Amino acid sequence: MVIVMKPIASQEDIGKIVEKMENQGYRVHKSVGDNYCILGLIGDTNKIDISQLEANAMVEKVLRVHHPFKLASRLFHHDDTVIQVGDCKIGKGSLAIIAGPCAVESEEQLMTIAREVKKAGAQFLRGGAYKPRTSPYSFQGLGEEGLKILRKAKEETGMPIVTEVMSHETFDVVEEYADILQIGARNMQNFALLKQAGKSSKPILLKRGMSATIEEFLMAAEYIMSEGNHQVILCERGIRTFETYTRNTLDLSAIPVIKELSHLPVIVDPSHATGKWAMVEPLSKAAVAAGADGLTIEVHHQPELALSDGGQSLKPEKFAKLVESVYRIASVY
Amino acid sequence: MVIVMKPIASQEDIGKIVEKMENQGYRVHKSVGDNYCILGLIGDTNKIDISQLEANAMVEKVLRVHHPFKLASRLFHHDDTVIQVGDCKIGKGSLAIIAGPCAVESEEQLMTIAREVKKAGAQFLRGGAYKPRTSPYSFQGLGEEGLKILRKAKEETGMPIVTEVMSHETFDVVEEYADILQIGARNMQNFALLKQAGKSSKPILLKRGMSATIEEFLMAAEYIMSEGNHQVILCERGIRTFETYTRNTLDLSAIPVIKELSHLPVIVDPSHATGKWAMVEPLSKAAVAAGADGLTIEVHHQPELALSDGGQSLKPEKFAKLVESVYRIASVY
Amino acid sequence: MVIVMKPIASQEDIGKIVEKMENQGYRVHKSVGDNYCILGLIGDTNKIDISQLEANAMVEKVLRVHHPFKLASRLFHHDDTVIQVGDCKIGKGSLAIIAGPCAVESEEQLMTIAREVKKAGAQFLRGGAYKPRTSPYSFQGLGEEGLKILRKAKEETGMPIVTEVMSHETFDVVEEYADILQIGARNMQNFALLKQAGKSSKPILLKRGMSATIEEFLMAAEYIMSEGNHQVILCERGIRTFETYTRNTLDLSAIPVIKELSHLPVIVDPSHATGKWAMVEPLSKAAVAAGADGLTIEVHHQPELALSDGGQSLKPEKFAKLVESVYRIASVY
Amino acid sequence: MVIVMKPIASQEDIGKIVEKMENQGYRVHKSVGDNYCILGLIGDTNKIDISQLEANAMVEKVLRVHHPFKLASRLFHHDDTVIQVGDCKIGKGSLAIIAGPCAVESEEQLMTIAREVKKAGAQFLRGGAYKPRTSPYSFQGLGEEGLKILRKAKEETGMPIVTEVMSHETFDVVEEYADILQIGARNMQNFALLKQAGKSSKPILLKRGMSATIEEFLMAAEYIMSEGNHQVILCERGIRTFETYTRNTLDLSAIPVIKELSHLPVIVDPSHATGKWAMVEPLSKAAVAAGADGLTIEVHHQPELALSDGGQSLKPEKFAKLVESVYRIASVY
Repeated sequence: MVIVMKPIASQEDIGKIVEKMENQGYRVHKSVGDNYCILGLIGDTNKIDISQLEANAMVEKVLRVHHPFKLASRLFHHDDTVIQVGDCKIGKGSLAIIAGPCAVESEEQLMTIAREVKKAGAQFLRGGAYKPRTSPYSFQGLGEEGLKILRKAKEETGMPIVTEVMSHETFDVVEEYADILQIGARNMQNFALLKQAGKSSKPILLKRGMSATIEEFLMAAEYIMSEGNHQVILCERGIRTFETYTRNTLDLSAIPVIKELSHLPVIVDPSHATGKWAMVEPLSKAAVAAGADGLTIEVHHQPELALSDGGQSLKPEKFAKLVESVYRIASVY
Repeated sequence: MVIVMKPIASQEDIGKIVEKMENQGYRVHKSVGDNYCILGLIGDTNKIDISQLEANAMVEKVLRVHHPFKLASRLFHHDDTVIQVGDCKIGKGSLAIIAGPCAVESEEQLMTIAREVKKAGAQFLRGGAYKPRTSPYSFQGLGEEGLKILRKAKEETGMPIVTEVMSHETFDVVEEYADILQIGARNMQNFALLKQAGKSSKPILLKRGMSATIEEFLMAAEYIMSEGNHQVILCERGIRTFETYTRNTLDLSAIPVIKELSHLPVIVDPSHATGKWAMVEPLSKAAVAAGADGLTIEVHHQPELALSDGGQSLKPEKFAKLVESVYRIASVY
Repeated sequence: MVIVMKPIASQEDIGKIVEKMENQGYRVHKSVGDNYCILGLIGDTNKIDISQLEANAMVEKVLRVHHPFKLASRLFHHDDTVIQVGDCKIGKGSLAIIAGPCAVESEEQLMTIAREVKKAGAQFLRGGAYKPRTSPYSFQGLGEEGLKILRKAKEETGMPIVTEVMSHETFDVVEEYADILQIGARNMQNFALLKQAGKSSKPILLKRGMSATIEEFLMAAEYIMSEGNHQVILCERGIRTFETYTRNTLDLSAIPVIKELSHLPVIVDPSHATGKWAMVEPLSKAAVAAGADGLTIEVHHQPELALSDGGQSLKPEKFAKLVESVYRIASVY
Repeated sequence: MVIVMKPIASQEDIGKIVEKMENQGYRVHKSVGDNYCILGLIGDTNKIDISQLEANAMVEKVLRVHHPFKLASRLFHHDDTVIQVGDCKIGKGSLAIIAGPCAVESEEQLMTIAREVKKAGAQFLRGGAYKPRTSPYSFQGLGEEGLKILRKAKEETGMPIVTEVMSHETFDVVEEYADILQIGARNMQNFALLKQAGKSSKPILLKRGMSATIEEFLMAAEYIMSEGNHQVILCERGIRTFETYTRNTLDLSAIPVIKELSHLPVIVDPSHATGKWAMVEPLSKAAVAAGADGLTIEVHHQPELALSDGGQSLKPEKFAKLVESVYRIASVY
């Protein structure tokens, strides 16, 4: 960590800060330039509250030298983490395909879609039983009834279930039915939920918040890991920008960046990122080419009747074509 | 609501959509232009799932004519809502000043600050007992111990307490001690928490999410109101943009916009918006000049020792000067 | 175009707007809902100044039904445009690779790099003679001297030259030497320059502005085309967002979106988008997988001595590996 | 400047960088931490190309300690700059009000508006003769004819003229007629135009680019100043964010930030920032309360007939009320 002192700071002002930091156990290297004096701190600076330092009227700014995450960092855990669920793997070269409807609407709907996506090559089945909706007047999901339908689909197809957990009250019931617990973009900094997920024995699929930096995304993973659950799958799903033609802007740079900073697997959700079914296939191919460890894709056999996100859902035949395409790209490497 | 059909849509394609919408009880006005046919829908279009319509391959896009909130809308509730807490009012011309430390750290700390802000003219005391922190390794608040200290400060100073509720598990205990429950920016779309707040009898101070549009902000208020609690105070606290010199970008346009769209009171938090104590006074004055119903300001007697957000906390004497300034501006009108 | 009237608008208010628009030659369809009356306008609405309509106190808002570009629109020009330069093509399936240093620094530097990129498979040589730099104290380019060096490299390698034109004063000299004129992101809405480019006989490589929507990007192309030059190549190069780990956020969704809206070829610049050489290869592969018609890549044999953008420049051997990778992906289709 | 070396960098790698920087004349302070070694550089680091350093495979990142502008910096020029135009001043406590139509449309239009804004208390007259328009099919301004009309209005009312210069070709003619030359947001990084402005003897009103950071904004001012023209007035006019209800998001934090970093005067344009006339008065008051040195306001006597930006133009009577309000706020201090 580097403390930049204000040009007007006196020797005494600087001395006070140096003394304070040394008293806290840091070694301090002082460099005096023409206008600025900077202090390099050596020691475990993760414990320092930067804002507290910046409260000092003689401190211009504080620059961090390294990222504040540890358990999620590749620096301290060199090898890629691989998440194993039944026979399926996520991470390190395997290409995991998660597919299914946005929401479970009925047994018939889910079974139809589950069979189709299985046939097309999906390894995991997704579907929401508890749905986060912008409007309180929109369909909120079938709740436990939806979870039971997901279990039936798992029994028939063998595909592990990925489904969202939204709150403390429903955590246990979702955990009972799900193989992978999804935490949605809007809850990426719901710290109470992250801590609870950290105590679960199930892998967590953590979606990037709409306005979360990659560092904040990895700090959210760190929350989960710091409670003991190291099975975290990161999911890039688009960030909020000024561009409105697509619902969000898919940030595929996040894939190589996360691979560099962290050992955790990272997958991509092109359905939510774009909000438009016609964009899903080209961006799925791009995600795999950029090095994603998997994809999560919304599929519906009757998108124009879907109770949520119909506009971004692929029909099964289009999904089958997508799976074939992305495997061809994956095979290039 | 307006449906824009694709230029390649045939008469039959258009007829199918018209029939479908009429079957759902809407009247449909068709306008045929040179390249595009557009369909105007009349009826309660809030129930329509836009994404479902956009799933239709012949639909180019769907344009909404009005905002999706009702209870929060000025259209259906013309007069300004006023929130009464004890002798204090928020809304309709009164200027509410909420002040206190970011976090309750000790009895001595809180009592010192509480007396100072009371003396300077604050009507409400703020202070966090449960703190949302980006890092799991940062100070997370004193919990119920902090709430008890807040109650003591209320007993001595008479100021009602504003404090954050972060989760289901701690909702009841926070509700017991607080006069106004704050929902933080990161939880603005934690829908489970919003619903629980909607069942509370206490007023809710709802902070705008870092990447929430004003429409989404009002939809979050609608969530609370739709459960029965109509006492919602909105708080603009800065949005995330590309500018990094300030922590966030305070969006003061939101004040006149919210006043136009909604009857709910709106206050401003310049401390979190800027992250820099030196910016708090000019932006507080600007907020009041723009028509804000109140301010929430972080104050600490020893910012350089604060356990969180020291860099944006004002010392009591600077806060006193701020209060005097904003009252002078308020008196101009 | 759809005009949404305010709920308080009287029949007379509405009648006045209808009359005004009919007098301007538009047909007007009126739909009256419960709270809102909407007016659908039929005719060439591109000429309408929306802001003028919104100045009317009884108008709530104006919604556009279609995009304001025509010459750039696929609606009126169905087939993909192909740009031919010498023996090379850009557009419709061919994969154009443009490579070279950020800036021409010396004859030795450019010739070395030109030979390397040619050998590795590049078809076009890039290099700036006039450089737009954020700081007036940074290297501003060699000017005409740089153009002469580019010509030498073309004579030896046969590669057509892509170089930036920054201003009116230097337009003619750049046009004389260049085979493709590049207009940089910061000049995307320098309308005087766009008009001048529209009168040129050389193809224009137009880079997307850092905060330009796709619609504005296509309107900038429309400016050039409206002056007579229809040879426009669009280049996605990253947009400005809150994420700071990469210099900009590469928006690969723009590729399928532009392919849908326009017939113009679109290429990608991953070097400027990320600002980090290690991200260039994965994002180049992603761009090609998403359907890009080409890439422009910064290459330098001694990046740590480069006078600009060293941090994002690939060494020749890394570039050769990149070319091989992207051709393998292109061959999948 | 601080160079952070990668954790894998060897003593030899670090030694090479130290030697290289010392050879360039910098003193280097080395601090070795547990994982990272950091190098503090002392000397005139403005000349260093950061990207070149980052090209080194052993460099993690480079942190800048101070801002790269000098002439625009308060650090080297402590007192507020005041721009004098005729009898009017901009900067240091005076409140400059610039008003007029977006575009000059006719003599009658401009004279009517000029008389009205003069009567209401404006000191400067604005009006565009050359208009930057997103669409090539929109009204592009009257050109020199418009400048002549502006001169007539100046002759009658005595108000100095503020008008935009868009290009090299028309620079001289605009400079001849204008008292203050405006450079628009889209040209904020049109470096050729900035250099030309730097050679002018007229003050320059420089508008912040839609996606420019405050640092880039000040670097654009530095471009002008580095050519010799130190009379630069900065204008905050809204930045591009995800919020679409207002056209842009007015960043009033920029006022105290610029006052801290620079000695140049800063004014605010609430008309372009919001795009909505009803938001102009509250945000004008906020701007003055935040410490702005002036305002530029669009006024039109018939906004619903305006050839551009009618939706954001105030009628003269509303403008007169605004002027009265902002002077009352200014008088509070």
